[in-house]
Amino acid sequence: MMKDMDIPDIVIRRLPIYARSLSYLSSEGITTVSSSELGARIGVTAAQIRRDLSYFGEFGKQGKGYNVQFLLNQIRDILHLEQQWGVALVGTGHLGEAIAHYGGFMDKGFDIIALFDADNRKVGQELAGHPIFHTSKIQEKIAELGIQVAIVAVPASAAQEVVDVLVSAGVKAILNYAPVSLQVPPDVRTRSIDPVGLLQSMTYYLNPEKAQKNGRVLR
Amino acid sequence: MMKDMDIPDIVIRRLPIYARSLSYLSSEGITTVSSSELGARIGVTAAQIRRDLSYFGEFGKQGKGYNVQFLLNQIRDILHLEQQWGVALVGTGHLGEAIAHYGGFMDKGFDIIALFDADNRKVGQELAGHPIFHTSKIQEKIAELGIQVAIVAVPASAAQEVVDVLVSAGVKAILNYAPVSLQVPPDVRTRSIDPVGLLQSMTYYLNPEKAQKNGRVLR
Repeated sequence: MMKDMDIPDIVIRRLPIYARSLSYLSSEGITTVSSSELGARIGVTAAQIRRDLSYFGEFGKQGKGYNVQFLLNQIRDILHLEQQWGVALVGTGHLGEAIAHYGGFMDKGFDIIALFDADNRKVGQELAGHPIFHTSKIQEKIAELGIQVAIVAVPASAAQEVVDVLVSAGVKAILNYAPVSLQVPPDVRTRSIDPVGLLQSMTYYLNPEKAQKNGRVLR
Repeated sequence: MMKDMDIPDIVIRRLPIYARSLSYLSSEGITTVSSSELGARIGVTAAQIRRDLSYFGEFGKQGKGYNVQFLLNQIRDILHLEQQWGVALVGTGHLGEAIAHYGGFMDKGFDIIALFDADNRKVGQELAGHPIFHTSKIQEKIAELGIQVAIVAVPASAAQEVVDVLVSAGVKAILNYAPVSLQVPPDVRTRSIDPVGLLQSMTYYLNPEKAQKNGRVLR
């Protein structure tokens, strides 16, 4: 296996997609899969999958495909998913509520164990079974719980300040829902969720004339 | 300007990030920006920005930087953002509610004008000022409104079926929140939002021993 620094981040970003697809295959009772079958499910080429996995070792036998459960376990191991990661969620507005209620985090290795909001009216209330703390408690609670992972669901104007506090509290991985580019030290990872940007990158391909002609608003 | 097909999708995906940053600069009253200043804000190199923009023409003068408002207008024009795009939202659970209430779509060119849910108890109710229709009405309403853009916020098990209906109704751009790889015809674009995958791609870089030692659950 290559050293961490030699593996492109874009490869690391694809591993969860492979894991998800393998997990579906496993739940369907499928025990072996070829790189081309796996690629077709995900929308990448077989060569891409083989190249990505080759960074980490040999997982399949030529002509025999991959053992689904073995490869899934290996990828989960590479991504450090064989444990639950405690997660802090900052921001409990509509979006934070949806995140806190989403059942998909827990069984994928992420347990939202600390909630924070700047609004004093929310502090002390429960959301999805957890108490909401004031953002002034971020440092204290994150240190207490040894949390390394945080989700930021605050307005854009507050995001960098919240991130600075999270970083100083020892958080090393931040999933950011605020529409802003964050500044963090080199040892901290961030990923941003930007639905508006994703929509805007698709309208490039659309026909604006058609929309102008037919677009009406239903009120 | 090059023909559409010659411009890599990865370049198109970065344009909204440039637009967002230029929009902030503009709101701060900044009228010109160099590629290195813009790059520092976003976390990409100056060379990357110049290379990306060169696909579309000459937007800055050597040594003078870019005119913020002019470049912003050009990018908005390239991405077809000088109009509102009507959007259909399918799925009005916690996530769909957060999406419908999110104020950031409208002023960025996206107007959620049709809501759908498979749950008959939700049909006829209003969400963020719009009535919820049954998913059986997708085809009819989308044709009526000339909608080309949809957001899918349904469970993974229902996503492909919903997408098939959207595609047959004429939708060409789909923002997918369900944790599943979608199959669509080549003339339809999809972008997926996968918070779990993004978190999993960050834990690769974290120290699992530290988490196991310190991780506790606050209940």
